[in-house]
Amino acid sequence: MANYLSGKEVNQHLVDSLTHRIALLEENKITPLLALVRVGQRPDDLSYERAAIKRAENLGIEIQRQVFNENISQRELEEAILAINEDERIHGCLLFRPLPSHIDEQAICDSLSIEKDIDGISTAALASIFIDSDKGFAPCTAAACLEMIDYYQIPLTGKHVVVIGRSLVIGKPVAMMLLRRNASVTICHSKTEDLPALCQTADIVICATGRPQAYGVEYFRPGQVVLDVGINYDEAGNLYGDVDFEAVEPIVEAITPVPGGIGTITTSMLMKAVISAAEQGNFS
Amino acid sequence: MANYLSGKEVNQHLVDSLTHRIALLEENKITPLLALVRVGQRPDDLSYERAAIKRAENLGIEIQRQVFNENISQRELEEAILAINEDERIHGCLLFRPLPSHIDEQAICDSLSIEKDIDGISTAALASIFIDSDKGFAPCTAAACLEMIDYYQIPLTGKHVVVIGRSLVIGKPVAMMLLRRNASVTICHSKTEDLPALCQTADIVICATGRPQAYGVEYFRPGQVVLDVGINYDEAGNLYGDVDFEAVEPIVEAITPVPGGIGTITTSMLMKAVISAAEQGNFS
Repeated sequence: MANYLSGKEVNQHLVDSLTHRIALLEENKITPLLALVRVGQRPDDLSYERAAIKRAENLGIEIQRQVFNENISQRELEEAILAINEDERIHGCLLFRPLPSHIDEQAICDSLSIEKDIDGISTAALASIFIDSDKGFAPCTAAACLEMIDYYQIPLTGKHVVVIGRSLVIGKPVAMMLLRRNASVTICHSKTEDLPALCQTADIVICATGRPQAYGVEYFRPGQVVLDVGINYDEAGNLYGDVDFEAVEPIVEAITPVPGGIGTITTSMLMKAVISAAEQGNFS
Repeated sequence: MANYLSGKEVNQHLVDSLTHRIALLEENKITPLLALVRVGQRPDDLSYERAAIKRAENLGIEIQRQVFNENISQRELEEAILAINEDERIHGCLLFRPLPSHIDEQAICDSLSIEKDIDGISTAALASIFIDSDKGFAPCTAAACLEMIDYYQIPLTGKHVVVIGRSLVIGKPVAMMLLRRNASVTICHSKTEDLPALCQTADIVICATGRPQAYGVEYFRPGQVVLDVGINYDEAGNLYGDVDFEAVEPIVEAITPVPGGIGTITTSMLMKAVISAAEQGNFS
């Protein structure tokens, strides 16, 4: 039976440490302020927004909600982001995506200043990850994977990590972050030939494709650590990861459950970034 | 015995195609102009400069040499680059590196506009490669690897490429370019555990570490394609690649020799980028 890598446990540890950092900020009369920018009423955005507000309030982070009509123009949305850049009270900004199809999403993401881009959506933040600069913040799911790995002291130097998925939200940035930590990293995707055999060669496998329960026993072997980034709901509203947990869990060394794994940490990682932004803006 | 992937043959094909494109530019009264920026008198820079000038002249590309004293200040060098950005006659700029240690090299690279950055040294150009944008040019050695692969019609989709080396000049950018072409890509480096076994799992291996003849038979198996990016001179001035060519060549399916492989194409790749920049500036 595998060790459970518990998102709940990591999150509790995170919350404790963030609570302490917020108290230090408060001593300096600073309350971290997070701007949430939502366009339209997508149910996914609304539920993400609720979760973010709840986590922020519990920590003592202030929220400023900005909600726009889904017919907003490129220019109006860009101006809203530029106003956030200018507003010294705001430390970080979370923009819910995808944006409506008439909007050039990359241009909007790139209008957000790197200092306030707490979810690594701008080209500048992503470039930073690629060139190993210390500027900016990583996408929160990629950051959550590293947080999980570090909490459970999973060695990375020299180890072989297979990342399944090549998106800019998780696959590519987490690969670069692991590379910086001296792991050897393989990036796989839907076109990869003989993915099971490739996964079997890894010490750590990160599944990030959004394919419910797609990765079963043939992908894994004893001794491996499995991080499941998938968040997939069935029609009844049940949550599944990318990994066939029941089949795989008895084989591998350690695994993150879904729910209760990586997804449990991501919102706190956003809060951690807001707090870091507040600290940098005021102590540096 | 392996197929030789001949840089000379690829280069001849490249030169023919570039000659044709320059003729078309000339019909529009445009002569591509490449600025070479050198600080100090490093022998490596001087020999690279000579090679670039010779290749440019043979093609009919004009050269503007800018040579600065090694004591040049950050500001003076930055102003020289900004002047190149402003000069409409200049289509591309090659900056010899490393710069003297008192210079913030990244800041200088980032002052070059992405349109004229023909060797992908700016953060903007590298970001473009990371996010799969079509802006900018790749570092010329990474581009040379893809040119070699395409000339010999080596399939990439679904194939597993192991890249040894994680620099921003070759390892990381070539990995992203291969990923975009639907290869599965593993990035390895000096900290990788059991590198020979990992290399054995690959369809294609790219060696880019600058370790002379470091990769011998234990790294390879029949059927593989090997690209050797290494350029290493011994004390007698003999040139060696990263691969132990004599030992490995009989085993693998195809291999680039050194000399006569990737290194034979790189200068022409720079010229290709200058020509593309001239075409974009004038036809778009």
